[in-house]
Parts: sequence; C-alpha cells; structure tokens
Amino acid sequence: MSVIRVPIELRWGDQDAYGHINNVAILRVLEEARARAFWRAADSPAGAGIFPPLEPSQQIWALVADFKLRYRGQLPYQRRPVTVELKISQVGGASFVIEYALKADEDDAAPLVTACSTLVMVDRDTGKPQRLSAELREQLRQYSG
Amino acid sequence: MSVIRVPIELRWGDQDAYGHINNVAILRVLEEARARAFWRAADSPAGAGIFPPLEPSQQIWALVADFKLRYRGQLPYQRRPVTVELKISQVGGASFVIEYALKADEDDAAPLVTACSTLVMVDRDTGKPQRLSAELREQLRQYSG
Amino acid sequence: MSVIRVPIELRWGDQDAYGHINNVAILRVLEEARARAFWRAADSPAGAGIFPPLEPSQQIWALVADFKLRYRGQLPYQRRPVTVELKISQVGGASFVIEYALKADEDDAAPLVTACSTLVMVDRDTGKPQRLSAELREQLRQYSG
Amino acid sequence: MSVIRVPIELRWGDQDAYGHINNVAILRVLEEARARAFWRAADSPAGAGIFPPLEPSQQIWALVADFKLRYRGQLPYQRRPVTVELKISQVGGASFVIEYALKADEDDAAPLVTACSTLVMVDRDTGKPQRLSAELREQLRQYSG
Repeated sequence: MSVIRVPIELRWGDQDAYGHINNVAILRVLEEARARAFWRAADSPAGAGIFPPLEPSQQIWALVADFKLRYRGQLPYQRRPVTVELKISQVGGASFVIEYALKADEDDAAPLVTACSTLVMVDRDTGKPQRLSAELREQLRQYSG
Repeated sequence: MSVIRVPIELRWGDQDAYGHINNVAILRVLEEARARAFWRAADSPAGAGIFPPLEPSQQIWALVADFKLRYRGQLPYQRRPVTVELKISQVGGASFVIEYALKADEDDAAPLVTACSTLVMVDRDTGKPQRLSAELREQLRQYSG
Repeated sequence: MSVIRVPIELRWGDQDAYGHINNVAILRVLEEARARAFWRAADSPAGAGIFPPLEPSQQIWALVADFKLRYRGQLPYQRRPVTVELKISQVGGASFVIEYALKADEDDAAPLVTACSTLVMVDRDTGKPQRLSAELREQLRQYSG
Repeated sequence: MSVIRVPIELRWGDQDAYGHINNVAILRVLEEARARAFWRAADSPAGAGIFPPLEPSQQIWALVADFKLRYRGQLPYQRRPVTVELKISQVGGASFVIEYALKADEDDAAPLVTACSTLVMVDRDTGKPQRLSAELREQLRQYSG
C-alpha cells in the first residue's frame, strides 16, 4: 500500500565533467536506496527490512536482471539528500519489480529520474532462480504503492 | 552498415561484494565504449569519431535521456578486455539511439548484457534540444548495423 | 580551535570483492567530508562554509597536492553514517593541510582511517598558486583543532 | 631489478566537475595497475603474476595498510592508456611496499603522480598478518627496481 521514501546523500564526486550528477552515479544512488528500503544491514534495528543483509555469504543472492531509466532533467549536486521513492509494481515466483522516482526534494511534484528494475533471487552456488516464500511475497506486496 | 567493436578494460574495483562486475559498473563500461565509438578525444587521430570531444566547453552537450539494460549473465572480473558492440538503431531530429551488446570475448555468440540508450543533443546554456545537422545524421546512419 | 565532525553515508557499492569498504572508496568518503566541511554548496544556508562552491566556473580552484592515508582496520558496510573528523593542521600562503580521522561511530576512541592532505589554491586559467586572503587564513585557523 | 610498466585505460567517467581525472579515480587506476602487475587473474596465462588471484575465497588477503600520493600535475582525460610504473621498494615479513609513477606517456620524463603503498598479507579469518614465504619474498625482490 505504501511507497517507501529513502533520503540518499549525493557526493561531489558523483558529478562528471559536465558538472552535474552523472547518469551512472544515479544508478548507484538508486542501488543504495533499494538496499536501504528492502534489505537489512548488519547494524539495522530488529525487524527492519524484508531481506537479510546483502552479503555474499547468504545462500540466496538478489541479482539485477534488467533496468530501465528515464532521465527527465539534469540533477545538479546538492548538499541536502535527494529523495528516492520506491514501490513494488510486480511480484513473480522468483523475482519482483521495483519502481523508482528520484526527486531533488521530497515535495517535488515531478521526479528528475524514473526507473524500474527486476530483481531475481538466485542460488549462489547453482545460479538457479529461487522461489520467494509466500511470506516474502506477502511482505513485498505491502509496498505495491 | 557496420557495427563498432570497442574493447574495454575492466577494473578489479568494478566488482562488488558478490565478487562479480557490479551492474552499475557495467553502465560505466558502456559509457566508455560509447565515448570511444562516437566522440573524438583530445588525443584522437584526425578524422576519428563523429562528434567533437565530450567537453563542457562545447556548446552542444550530449545527454543520456534514457537507458534500458538487460543483464543476461554474471560477468566475472577478467584481465583481458571485454568487447562492446555498438550500433545506431535510430536517428531522430535532435537525438539518436545506441544499441549495445557486451561480450566477454569478441567471438562469443551470446552477449552477457544488452542495452540501448537515447542520446539527446542540447544547448548547454538553454538546455533546449539542438537539431543534428544532415551531415551528422548521415554519419550516424553508417553505424546502423 | 574546533574539530569539525561530518557524518557521511556509506554505500553498499563502496564495497569491493572482499566485502568491506574499498580503500579507494574511503578516499571518496574523505573527499565528501572535506567538501561539506569547508565549501558551500548551491543549497547551503547563508554563512555556511569558508569557500565558495567547488564549481569549475570559480576562478580559484582547490586542487589536492598530496594525500597520506593510514588504514588501521577494516571498515564493513554499515547503514548508519560514519563520522569524519577534520581539522586544519597547517595554513600556508596558497595552501593548507587537512587532517582526517574516520570513525565507525562518533564516540569511538580509535579511528579506522587517519589521513592528511594538502590543498592548493590555483588560478584555473594559469594554473598558478593563488594566495589565500588574510581573512580566509584566519577562518581556516579556527579549525586548527 | 626491473620496473614493471602497466598501461591502464582511463575512462571519461574518471573525470570530476573540474574536467580532469579526479584524484580519487587516480587511486583506482593505481589499484588496477597493482593488481595487473603482481596478481594473477582467472584468465592470466600460466606463470603470470606472483600472487594467486585477488579473490575473497583465498585464505590470505592482501590489504592496503597505507598510501601516500603526490599529485604533481593535472591529468586530463586521454584516449590512449596512461603508463603506471611499479617497483618494490621494500619487502618485510608479512608486507611489502610498492612505489608507483603515473605518466601520461611511457616516454615522459616527469610523472604526473608518484605514490607508494604498503600491502600487508593477512589471514582472512583471523585478520592476523601472515608471513610471506621465502620464495615469494625472492620473487618480489626481482622488482626492486
């Protein structure tokens, strides 16, 4: 039901020679927002996140299968964090789709970047897709916006 | 008519905690392949490239308007360069579309990543799209695969 | 007199194949801390920072002349920001020296990384060192720890 | 006896808002040169390198303990590779020191960047320094310039 809003700090070094945030760096920002929205970290509070930490020692890895980005405006470096809104637009057997909207400010009507990506859960040893449990699928559906 | 093949060196640091080339780093590799395929650099031989160097002092900037990537297999770090194949799939008034295929080896049948992106030419001061000259459009069409 | 403490967010993508924050990424974190400590940004509050925004349109550029880093312990990815402490250890005619200490938590006794770097102010057209004004030198000395 | 020369490709994205290769990106370039000079990779020819591949599955990890860099001139983006010269200036019990000189062209007299770093071999489980074998120490000494 709900959209997740994650503030992410830009870095001066995210800029390219054009003096604006580079389009590759924006993918990095979306990666961080995704990790913070859905995965726990070693220092997350109990109950946070849906998935265990994104660590190679986990048996199930989350891999990016595809990404679509639309850059709607130039993003200059700013000291305040940008806001990334995330929601789950689709839940499949072993995968789910995240939609992103990046805004310079939380209240902005128009995002500067919109994107969506499919994440696939795979077994780290065999590389084969791994079915999401009914419980995980239910949790993901809570963020279907 | 022809596809451009650009060898690009990976870096050990392109890997993430999963020990494979990170999906964001792959966008960086495609960026470099695109720059080398179509833009001159300060040290390019005369006649190389279609566009003048990607420098902020140029009046016309090339901006990425959208990107679609499909990651078809994991790419481990390798010492030999990967091959990025590029062709122009569409030429518009002020924009063009590049298709990419990234292969671990030039002779591989199946690419590990396929992608396409729209580049828009804009005036750096006004931000307005700038029409490609007939000559540039003709040159771009030579790489329509 | 005072040390500046700047919280900086890590990114999952700052990790390398060893699964800890990469030593190059740490230099990026220190760069961001330095920018936030001493330079204004387009969206900084009035009176913030000592120097005008780090933008290429400025006549005086701040260039890194040297860097020394000592990595005293491994830094795993964490969701909470790390703390970078900065102080000015030396003010020269056209340069100054910043000392850094990076801690996983503000209250930690022992930093995981200590570093220092010399910044030189140069004219962007001639590349020649530019004398710091007496006023700037005075402001920098306030952060001499 | 001999210095190792490693050509490394720059990337357009290594530039920062000043339009030159960013000082952090230069550390990345030195990292890649070091990996190529002394470590095998999965696709290295037999007999190449001194150390086994820099992979987390190895029991002994090579960690950067310190780094000193001196930036002697600005490095603009160039299409041809830069040359990084590496030699071993010191071999300790569980560590060794690498000296680097980065040149825009192999024949340049003056490097744009000089640097040195101490690498320490540690056990990945205990984190304790691990003694270099007599054989490895001998091999490293061959690159003492």
